[in-house]
Amino acid sequence: MSTLAIEARERITLRHGSGGRAMRALIEDVFLQRVEANASPQDVGPEAMDDGAALWIGDRWIVVTTDSHVVHPVFFPGGDIGRLSICGTVNDLAMMGATEVLGLTCGVILEEGFLREDLERIQASMAEACREAGARIVTGDTKVMGRGEIDGIVLNTAGVAATGRVVRDCGLSVGDRIIVTGAVGDHGLAILAARHGLKLEGDLASDVAPINGLVRAALSAGGDGVIAMKDPTRGGLSSALHEMAQKSGVGIVLEEVAVPVHEPVRAAADLLGIDPLHVANEGKAVIGVRADAADAVLEALRAHPLGREAAIVARCIAERPGNVILDTGFGKRLLSEPEGELLPRIC
Amino acid sequence: MSTLAIEARERITLRHGSGGRAMRALIEDVFLQRVEANASPQDVGPEAMDDGAALWIGDRWIVVTTDSHVVHPVFFPGGDIGRLSICGTVNDLAMMGATEVLGLTCGVILEEGFLREDLERIQASMAEACREAGARIVTGDTKVMGRGEIDGIVLNTAGVAATGRVVRDCGLSVGDRIIVTGAVGDHGLAILAARHGLKLEGDLASDVAPINGLVRAALSAGGDGVIAMKDPTRGGLSSALHEMAQKSGVGIVLEEVAVPVHEPVRAAADLLGIDPLHVANEGKAVIGVRADAADAVLEALRAHPLGREAAIVARCIAERPGNVILDTGFGKRLLSEPEGELLPRIC
Repeated sequence: MSTLAIEARERITLRHGSGGRAMRALIEDVFLQRVEANASPQDVGPEAMDDGAALWIGDRWIVVTTDSHVVHPVFFPGGDIGRLSICGTVNDLAMMGATEVLGLTCGVILEEGFLREDLERIQASMAEACREAGARIVTGDTKVMGRGEIDGIVLNTAGVAATGRVVRDCGLSVGDRIIVTGAVGDHGLAILAARHGLKLEGDLASDVAPINGLVRAALSAGGDGVIAMKDPTRGGLSSALHEMAQKSGVGIVLEEVAVPVHEPVRAAADLLGIDPLHVANEGKAVIGVRADAADAVLEALRAHPLGREAAIVARCIAERPGNVILDTGFGKRLLSEPEGELLPRIC
Repeated sequence: MSTLAIEARERITLRHGSGGRAMRALIEDVFLQRVEANASPQDVGPEAMDDGAALWIGDRWIVVTTDSHVVHPVFFPGGDIGRLSICGTVNDLAMMGATEVLGLTCGVILEEGFLREDLERIQASMAEACREAGARIVTGDTKVMGRGEIDGIVLNTAGVAATGRVVRDCGLSVGDRIIVTGAVGDHGLAILAARHGLKLEGDLASDVAPINGLVRAALSAGGDGVIAMKDPTRGGLSSALHEMAQKSGVGIVLEEVAVPVHEPVRAAADLLGIDPLHVANEGKAVIGVRADAADAVLEALRAHPLGREAAIVARCIAERPGNVILDTGFGKRLLSEPEGELLPRIC
C-alpha cells in the first residue's frame, strides 16, 4: 500500500471525543452497528444514547452508566479528576431517575512515575464526593502503563442503581417548560483558565458536585410532571437542549436572559469569545417538566443548597422541531449546535 | 523543596499494576483506607478484594465488576483488546457465581490518529465475544486524548449480573480439592511472543474466551459443593492459589504433573526461563470443590468444549496455611508468590 493510501485511511480526531455531533456520528456508525436487541421491551439500551442504560429485572430497573475521565490538569479550581469521576457517574444515574446509588466501580490507569501523594489526594477527593452523594465504591481495578504511554492518570467509573421509575432524555411535548438547576459555564471555563494559566482563574471554579440529592428533591416535588432530564456536560446547555429537542421532536425556545451565568464566567467568556451556553458543566441538570409542575419543581430546587439559582429558561414549541431557538430579548435566532467541545480533555 | 526531596517522594512503578503483592499492597494502603461500610451485611465489598462486588437488594445479589484493558499489542494471536475486555469482565462476574450477564458497559479512550478500521475490527471482536457469552453492551463512553497522551487505545468494561448465590474466592477447608479448567500459560506467552516477535509465536495463541457457560455447567453439577472460584489472570495459577490459600487460611498442595500445559507453552517457557504457573490466562477458572463433589464437577467441565482439559490439580491441607506447596513428583517445595506480572500491559 502506498504512503498516500495509508494516509487516506480514516483516523480518529479530537473532535470524535468531544461530546458533539462528530462523536455521536462515530458512536452511531461504529459502536451501534452490532448492538443486540434489548433483553426486555422495557429496557433503555445503547441505541437510546441516553445518559445510561436501564435494565428491567421483573420488578424494577437496574440503571447502569459509565464514564472515563481524562481531564487535564487533574487538579483544578473547585475540584480534581477524582471528584469529577464520582460526580459524573452519580449524576448520569440521577439523570435516569435513579438517585439512590447501589455502588460505583473505579478503574484507575496510572503512568509509571505518578506521584503516590497525588494518587492519595485524588482518592481522598473521591471518598469525599462519595460521602456527599451517599454512594460508595464497591470494586475497582488498577493498571499501570509505562512512562509516555499515558499522560498521568485516567479514571473510569461505572455506576449501578435501582429505580422504580426511569426518566429519559426524550418525551418532551409542546408547552413543557425547561429548568436549569443553576448557573452554566463554570466547569469548562475553570479548566480553560487553569490549563492556560489565565489571570482570571482566581474568580473561576468548577461547579463539579453530585446532584442526586437535588434531583431527588425535584422528582419528589414534580412526580410524573418531570418528563426528561439531561446533564449539560460536554457541549454545555446548548448540546443538551439540542439532543432533547431532536429526540422529542419539538422545538425549544431558550430565553437567553433567563439563563443564570456567574459574572466571572460571563467576563471570561466575553474576553475569549466563547458562548457560555456551549461550555461544560459538572453539577447541573436540565429538567423538562409539564407546565403545571414547573413552579413546584422550581421551588423544590431552590430550597436545596445546590439549586438556589435554578431557573425556568425555555419552553417547548411545535415549530422548528429538533432545533433550539435563542430568544435574546432583542430578537430570535437559531442556536448553533456544538460540533465538538471547545477544548479537549475537559472531563 | 530540594530536588533530592522531590526525588524521594514515592512514585508508582510498573510493579504496582501487575496483579501481584505490590499491587495488593497499593490497593490496601491507598484505595481501601476510606472504604465505607457495606450497606448490607450480606454484601461483598472492596475490602474482600474478590473478583467483583456483590450487593444485596433484598431478594438477590447484584454482582458488579470492572476492568481496564491496556494490552500491547492490541491484536495478538488468539484475540485482541476487544475480545479481552468482554471476556475479562464476563469471567470476573462468573467467578462470583453470576453466569447470566444483565449488561456490560464499555468506556473507550482513543489516541488522536487511531485508525478507524482498527476500531471497527476491535468493536466487531467485542460483539462476537458478547454473542459467545450471551451478553451485551448496554451503555458506553468515548474519549479522545491527544497524540502522545495515550498509547493507542484503552478499554474499560464493567459488568452487572444478578444471582441468587454468590461464590467467593475464600472459604476453602482442609480436604477440599482444586480444579483448573484447562491448560495454563497460553495468554501470557502469546503476548510475550507477539510483543518481541519471537519465532515461537506460530504455535502460541491466547486462550481468551468467555467461560460463564463453562462455570454454569460446574455450578449445576457441583451445587453447594463448589466452594470458591478465581480466574488465574495476572500472576497466573500461582497468584490465584496464593490468594485463595491466604484468604481461606489453608495450605494448598499443587501437584505439578497434574497441571495441564500445552507443549508450545512449555517449550517457550523453558526457553525463556519462565514458570508457566506464573503466567496469565484469560479463559480459565480455578475452582475449589468439596472432595465428594470433585468428580461430578470435573465430568461436567470436561463435557464442555472449553473444559476438555480440566484437571484436579491440588488439595487443601491444614499445614502451612496461606502457602502453596509444589509437589514436583520428586519432592516438595514452597511455590513462590509472584511479586508482579513478568511483563506489563498484558491485559
